[in-house]
Amino acid sequence: MASDVRNESLTEELPAENGLLYSSYAALYRDELVDNVLPFWLKHSRDEKNGGFFTCLRRDGSVYDTDKFMWLQGRQVWCFSYMYNNVAQKQEWLDMALHGAAFMEKYGRDATAGNWYFSLNAEGKPLTQPYNIFSDCFAAMGFASLDKASPNDRYKQIAVDTFENILRRKDNWKGIYNKAYPGTRLLKGFSLPMILCNLSLELEHLLGAGRVNEFIPTVIHEVMEVFYQPQYGLILESVHPDGSFSNSFEGRLINPGHTIEAMWFIMDLGRRMKDKTLIQKACDIMLHTLEYGWDKEFGGIYYFKDVLGNPPQQLEWDQKLWWVHVEALVALAKGFELTGDERCLKWFKKVHQYTWQHFRDEQYGEWFGYLNRRGEVLLDLKGGKWKGCFHIPRSLYQVWKTWEAVEANADADKLPG
Amino acid sequence: MASDVRNESLTEELPAENGLLYSSYAALYRDELVDNVLPFWLKHSRDEKNGGFFTCLRRDGSVYDTDKFMWLQGRQVWCFSYMYNNVAQKQEWLDMALHGAAFMEKYGRDATAGNWYFSLNAEGKPLTQPYNIFSDCFAAMGFASLDKASPNDRYKQIAVDTFENILRRKDNWKGIYNKAYPGTRLLKGFSLPMILCNLSLELEHLLGAGRVNEFIPTVIHEVMEVFYQPQYGLILESVHPDGSFSNSFEGRLINPGHTIEAMWFIMDLGRRMKDKTLIQKACDIMLHTLEYGWDKEFGGIYYFKDVLGNPPQQLEWDQKLWWVHVEALVALAKGFELTGDERCLKWFKKVHQYTWQHFRDEQYGEWFGYLNRRGEVLLDLKGGKWKGCFHIPRSLYQVWKTWEAVEANADADKLPG
Repeated sequence: MASDVRNESLTEELPAENGLLYSSYAALYRDELVDNVLPFWLKHSRDEKNGGFFTCLRRDGSVYDTDKFMWLQGRQVWCFSYMYNNVAQKQEWLDMALHGAAFMEKYGRDATAGNWYFSLNAEGKPLTQPYNIFSDCFAAMGFASLDKASPNDRYKQIAVDTFENILRRKDNWKGIYNKAYPGTRLLKGFSLPMILCNLSLELEHLLGAGRVNEFIPTVIHEVMEVFYQPQYGLILESVHPDGSFSNSFEGRLINPGHTIEAMWFIMDLGRRMKDKTLIQKACDIMLHTLEYGWDKEFGGIYYFKDVLGNPPQQLEWDQKLWWVHVEALVALAKGFELTGDERCLKWFKKVHQYTWQHFRDEQYGEWFGYLNRRGEVLLDLKGGKWKGCFHIPRSLYQVWKTWEAVEANADADKLPG
Repeated sequence: MASDVRNESLTEELPAENGLLYSSYAALYRDELVDNVLPFWLKHSRDEKNGGFFTCLRRDGSVYDTDKFMWLQGRQVWCFSYMYNNVAQKQEWLDMALHGAAFMEKYGRDATAGNWYFSLNAEGKPLTQPYNIFSDCFAAMGFASLDKASPNDRYKQIAVDTFENILRRKDNWKGIYNKAYPGTRLLKGFSLPMILCNLSLELEHLLGAGRVNEFIPTVIHEVMEVFYQPQYGLILESVHPDGSFSNSFEGRLINPGHTIEAMWFIMDLGRRMKDKTLIQKACDIMLHTLEYGWDKEFGGIYYFKDVLGNPPQQLEWDQKLWWVHVEALVALAKGFELTGDERCLKWFKKVHQYTWQHFRDEQYGEWFGYLNRRGEVLLDLKGGKWKGCFHIPRSLYQVWKTWEAVEANADADKLPG
């Protein structure tokens, strides 16, 4: 049944029996997660000699570079812990998470401040200084998730210490590596408030609901009222501290995938707070951003655009990236689940079709990461410096569970009241 | 006559009368420089209000961003001074150089060390710290060239002070902005020795021939024996301090345009030193790199490759950039002039055809900078953060003068002995 929806035509009408469609989607995404993507990383990414994960994998899974990037180490620890916690208590998944965490714990932080390095060599010697706070974010996320799978005071401590350290650094996280001259053009970025919210949720069992609930209103305000620009209906990546527009390369930048991903975080917060207005607003922004970011000629979602229509400085602006597309699938499925908006279902089918057709590697398993504008494979790697074991499995899980919930709700509607 | 060679077919045989071909090329490149490219920058890039140059220009020359990038300010001062010194003493060219230099002198350096900022805002306030020593290189080059056009002790002082400062910083020029962890993976880069050699030649009237002659053997050794890898016939961008190969993203990187540009610097040094063996070696490396970097399917020269055939980390690896192609034209013309190697002439015709057909903007003048792999315009800007008034005019000048010299030599051969 799963394969019926995989290559579904874009123009096809929705089947009369929506319940069947939902369950087909759910099964397809579940099978892809459990039978294709997780096994690929289990098989190819484990460094048996030095510990930790190889993430630079060729199309067939063979290793082409042995550097260890801390973003991706933390994300992979999170991923296998999360799947162990939420999908099935498979020992090999827990072992994988423990394997990565041991390497991270031993080599990942600097001695003075406990900041996480950006990268290490294969043996664990630091290569790149802790200039990037997202290493810390994904480390905290990984250890918190692992602590749920295999409770351990050390994991708790690492997760909480790292979280507090992020909060201390958050207003100048580049620290001495910040190349901006102080005062001339103050900008604040959209990434960190967004991820802090997600992170506090991931650490809720350690921080307590009270602490998490302190974060939520600030993040929602920042995202939906400060970075969101009503005149464009879009979210900017960087604004002045007072929320005003900066007519500069940074200030004009739109990253459609980033907005779309953020909107499903916001929908999840809306669900938690039972705020239907917030959910609908997030859904509307997501759909508008998708319209804006969709390539009308070749299909797929652009990586970057300039809000004023100027040339962006990113040479890769027209490329189609894996994470953008799979995050859009999550946002669309959740949008449909939470609002019933038919536009979400129509768009889901369209993005699903594009994504499965272009990113999935039928021959060697797992998914390609980088396509050119036409949807042709630009780099046939399965992992690298930025692509690891994270967005694809997380999204497959989220989409699976969302369609499962939609189907359950649809069935519930049919029950005699 | 000029237009005859502009759209010459790739497969066409060389005309019987090579003298005619050489003079057509010379005229074409001269006219393009004097009638198209320099007027475009004169008309559109001057900031009359705050001084300095706008470099972020749309296809039609209109300004889309007002930041001032010091690389490009210095390069444009150099360009208009150089053309004044070498093409014609046009007052508007000198005025343009003086206009840029005044802005640079007033705002461009930090107060403590005299390092050149990476960028300023329109009014001249610093935006990005002096993390990039190439700002200093092009500032020194600009002021030295301007000093030839309009001798002035202040210009001399700025050029020499900046040059000495570059030498002081050269072994750790990123300084506090260096994110590499000390000691784990020591790499040295190909860019700085190369540019120091070029720079010392530009400053020869200030430094003296003795000082310049000290640099040359070291640079030739570094480029032709340390960074050049005989087993590949290619030049690497980064090697270990002892010249050995680093199997890492940085160590595997090949930038064909950079090698090809470097090879015409080396040929110029070979001419200065009357070293025919060196010239032939540079010519051979250049031709081999061109073969290696040429896109056999769509034409044009790739931006980056991985020497072991792995996926490069640069997402823009398959794009076709203006500077790569125009620098190749210079290298091929000089290669032919200095060695008579027919492969240079054949390749020149092929690269000329591709370059003029794809990069030149027939409608609005000047040249596009960024094409996708297929040779379609990817960003239709005429200038931005990295493209300014430099490679195109410099190359047009160099190619013009080279074909003029080839023609003169050919004529001389015909004279009764």
